[in-house]
Amino acid sequence: MSRPLLAVVAGVGPGAGAAIARKFASQYPVVCLARKPESFNDVVAEINSSGGKALGIATDLSSSTSLQAAMATIGAEFGEGYGLSAAIFNAGGKFVRKPFLELTQGEFASSCEVPGNGAFLFAQATIPLLLASVANSQHPPSLIFTGATAALKSSSQMAAFAAGKWIQRSLAQSLAKEFGPQGVHVSHAIVDGFVDTPQVRELVKETNPDAMISPAAIADAYWYLHMQPRNCFTWEMDIRPYVEKW
Amino acid sequence: MSRPLLAVVAGVGPGAGAAIARKFASQYPVVCLARKPESFNDVVAEINSSGGKALGIATDLSSSTSLQAAMATIGAEFGEGYGLSAAIFNAGGKFVRKPFLELTQGEFASSCEVPGNGAFLFAQATIPLLLASVANSQHPPSLIFTGATAALKSSSQMAAFAAGKWIQRSLAQSLAKEFGPQGVHVSHAIVDGFVDTPQVRELVKETNPDAMISPAAIADAYWYLHMQPRNCFTWEMDIRPYVEKW
Amino acid sequence: MSRPLLAVVAGVGPGAGAAIARKFASQYPVVCLARKPESFNDVVAEINSSGGKALGIATDLSSSTSLQAAMATIGAEFGEGYGLSAAIFNAGGKFVRKPFLELTQGEFASSCEVPGNGAFLFAQATIPLLLASVANSQHPPSLIFTGATAALKSSSQMAAFAAGKWIQRSLAQSLAKEFGPQGVHVSHAIVDGFVDTPQVRELVKETNPDAMISPAAIADAYWYLHMQPRNCFTWEMDIRPYVEKW
Amino acid sequence: MSRPLLAVVAGVGPGAGAAIARKFASQYPVVCLARKPESFNDVVAEINSSGGKALGIATDLSSSTSLQAAMATIGAEFGEGYGLSAAIFNAGGKFVRKPFLELTQGEFASSCEVPGNGAFLFAQATIPLLLASVANSQHPPSLIFTGATAALKSSSQMAAFAAGKWIQRSLAQSLAKEFGPQGVHVSHAIVDGFVDTPQVRELVKETNPDAMISPAAIADAYWYLHMQPRNCFTWEMDIRPYVEKW
Repeated sequence: MSRPLLAVVAGVGPGAGAAIARKFASQYPVVCLARKPESFNDVVAEINSSGGKALGIATDLSSSTSLQAAMATIGAEFGEGYGLSAAIFNAGGKFVRKPFLELTQGEFASSCEVPGNGAFLFAQATIPLLLASVANSQHPPSLIFTGATAALKSSSQMAAFAAGKWIQRSLAQSLAKEFGPQGVHVSHAIVDGFVDTPQVRELVKETNPDAMISPAAIADAYWYLHMQPRNCFTWEMDIRPYVEKW
Repeated sequence: MSRPLLAVVAGVGPGAGAAIARKFASQYPVVCLARKPESFNDVVAEINSSGGKALGIATDLSSSTSLQAAMATIGAEFGEGYGLSAAIFNAGGKFVRKPFLELTQGEFASSCEVPGNGAFLFAQATIPLLLASVANSQHPPSLIFTGATAALKSSSQMAAFAAGKWIQRSLAQSLAKEFGPQGVHVSHAIVDGFVDTPQVRELVKETNPDAMISPAAIADAYWYLHMQPRNCFTWEMDIRPYVEKW
Repeated sequence: MSRPLLAVVAGVGPGAGAAIARKFASQYPVVCLARKPESFNDVVAEINSSGGKALGIATDLSSSTSLQAAMATIGAEFGEGYGLSAAIFNAGGKFVRKPFLELTQGEFASSCEVPGNGAFLFAQATIPLLLASVANSQHPPSLIFTGATAALKSSSQMAAFAAGKWIQRSLAQSLAKEFGPQGVHVSHAIVDGFVDTPQVRELVKETNPDAMISPAAIADAYWYLHMQPRNCFTWEMDIRPYVEKW
Repeated sequence: MSRPLLAVVAGVGPGAGAAIARKFASQYPVVCLARKPESFNDVVAEINSSGGKALGIATDLSSSTSLQAAMATIGAEFGEGYGLSAAIFNAGGKFVRKPFLELTQGEFASSCEVPGNGAFLFAQATIPLLLASVANSQHPPSLIFTGATAALKSSSQMAAFAAGKWIQRSLAQSLAKEFGPQGVHVSHAIVDGFVDTPQVRELVKETNPDAMISPAAIADAYWYLHMQPRNCFTWEMDIRPYVEKW
């Protein structure tokens, strides 16, 4: 029997994560990771009820133990010989914006926790499975990170948030250079703008329907990256609404 | 009668240009521009004989007069009310690599001629037609430039070649910021590696089938960019073979 | 009595750190911080015996407690009302280069420890003292970070080392934007090449006397940055030997 | 008799150019180039009357003929065997900011004329003289370009102005990589902000004395770059007033 190939999405919430899971479910069984089950329950149910296959696992992405437990659960569900065609790291760090001298050491460290330590752990857990799938995955196995403009420039009072985004981009770039030649496609998306969810739209009082980034369009972008053959790998692309200033 | 929407590809040769024309011909009548008819004759014939519609026009892209004549020919062929859904500037400058003190003023200037002056003229000719098509183009009207790694860093003995690529990227970035909010999607692709044509493959003695960028994959990338809705515009993406060092 | 203005150099070893301490000692009493006293003993003795004033304090820069103790020692020595005209963060992270899958979580974290957490703690401890000295420091109070090329690009097998350098640069950039308008000059130096010490020269078998960066020249660069008036602040400069490839 | 070593400053006006000429005149006879004599007459007279030596030559920097004539005049004045310790290209392109579709081909081309063609001609004329002075110049012979923020990012309606700045930076970077290893120090300064002259201050109604960049401070920066030994070359530094947003 052939090795089942899965997609795993870390950081599934109401925005891009759910849309990415939905998109990749069109071809793969999808594993959804998030701290709280309520973050992925809806999309998991939706995929399972519409002919796809999804599994949600409550996971603390900054904990090695929790992530290992999640990987074991995947093995129990899909068989130990499963491979990965796609691993998406969509988990954000906590957003903090405040004067530097009011920032605590804990806030600074926790801003780096998920995009730094969490991304490291996720990459270590998934890359062996991506490498093992190079030969039999239809599309090059892909490891995609969701970044932000704050990964390129660090603004005033944004030291903590930017630190996490920079560390993640640095990791992604090193991995792209090491594992690209081994057939694993590592990409980093610069998401520049608000992702369109009802909550955020309410929060920022945006009325232009196209002024926020559509989660489905982000999912399409990641799917396009995954479709790229290995003679045409994109390491980085930026994404923003047409009206965004940059 | 509805306004016909076209795609125009400037710089159609045996590599990416022909593949881009072929790809966009699946949805649009395509106009192919190149200095010499032998550069576009084959792909124009192929598109016309396989159910698409293509028109080739010999054009000197660095000449305002020649480009205006080309635009007039398009009008004569498709009717003056035609619009543009896509304009692709794929024309390269002349490649020169030599010690700076051996470079002539003419070589330096001519390296900037096509990606500088030519790109400027092409943008001025096409943007009004792209703007006029925002309301009725299914996908946001797109202006896409083919760039290179030399647009990001300027190497020793590459002053002339790099100058052209930098000027083109500068132009593309300014246009993206000015016309994005008006609904026209301006993108710049960083093509990092050799494009796979029989001539270049022979020249560089490359035997790995995936070590050169597939023209068809570049065309797919540009098509993906064109498909992006305006709530998810990408300004820049890099493209390279999986084995490329960077 | 006027407030004494000091310079503090974190990361004083045989290379740039000692040279920076020596340079700034021409105008300020200098505090030298390093984990082990043998790292700063020689330069502290040299400064004190040649008419300057230096104090060395063994400090673990990644420990808030240790850094606070160092600051208290400075207060005890120079009086609680002391101010800072310059704070130099020259401490490097541990250099690690290995295949990503062989990297441990601890190695990754410890690479970020000094340039991430350590730089954060140092900035929090020194910025209030730099701000308080804006009015009476002859030259704008300066906070200078020693960075590296790995802060700009992240290479294969360099994920851990680069992560630390990126996080430090991100922090420095945010601080420059927040505290520049308050009169504190924050800079980041990109040191691209080996710093010339007998140990490193032996290690890399370099015989060209000018192919490694002179510690004294780095110190001159930092001193120049400190001399800049506030109508001419430099945030970033790169430094490399003339023969370095880049 | 030893070879006389000069400094030549292209683009001497009331702002940075005059200050640079004044600064370099402390060590070298200085040649001042500008289109109109009234641009350099005052500073030339001032240098000559205060113990230095200066020569002003009306030169059209975008004309090869005019520049060659200037070089011949220098030879007639200082003897054919003269060398160069410093060559400063401080000439700006014409500033244009307008909607892209209102920009003429001539405006776009002329924005690139001085920073593109002019910088090329200046580099070709001066580099042989800088190379010939490596052995006997006290400080590494230096070629310094004045750039701007528009050399790093290209804004809406700034296509013409940015094109010139990008092309100049591209040229400078290539030259730094080619001639650095030969002992000539090539640098590019990013001047981010208004240079403080009475005319500009009046124009922008700036009252904060430190909110505009001091010409003398720019001159000090260039002098510092020139002082760098060849084991510590800086390719690029940014310069801005402390209150500038970036």
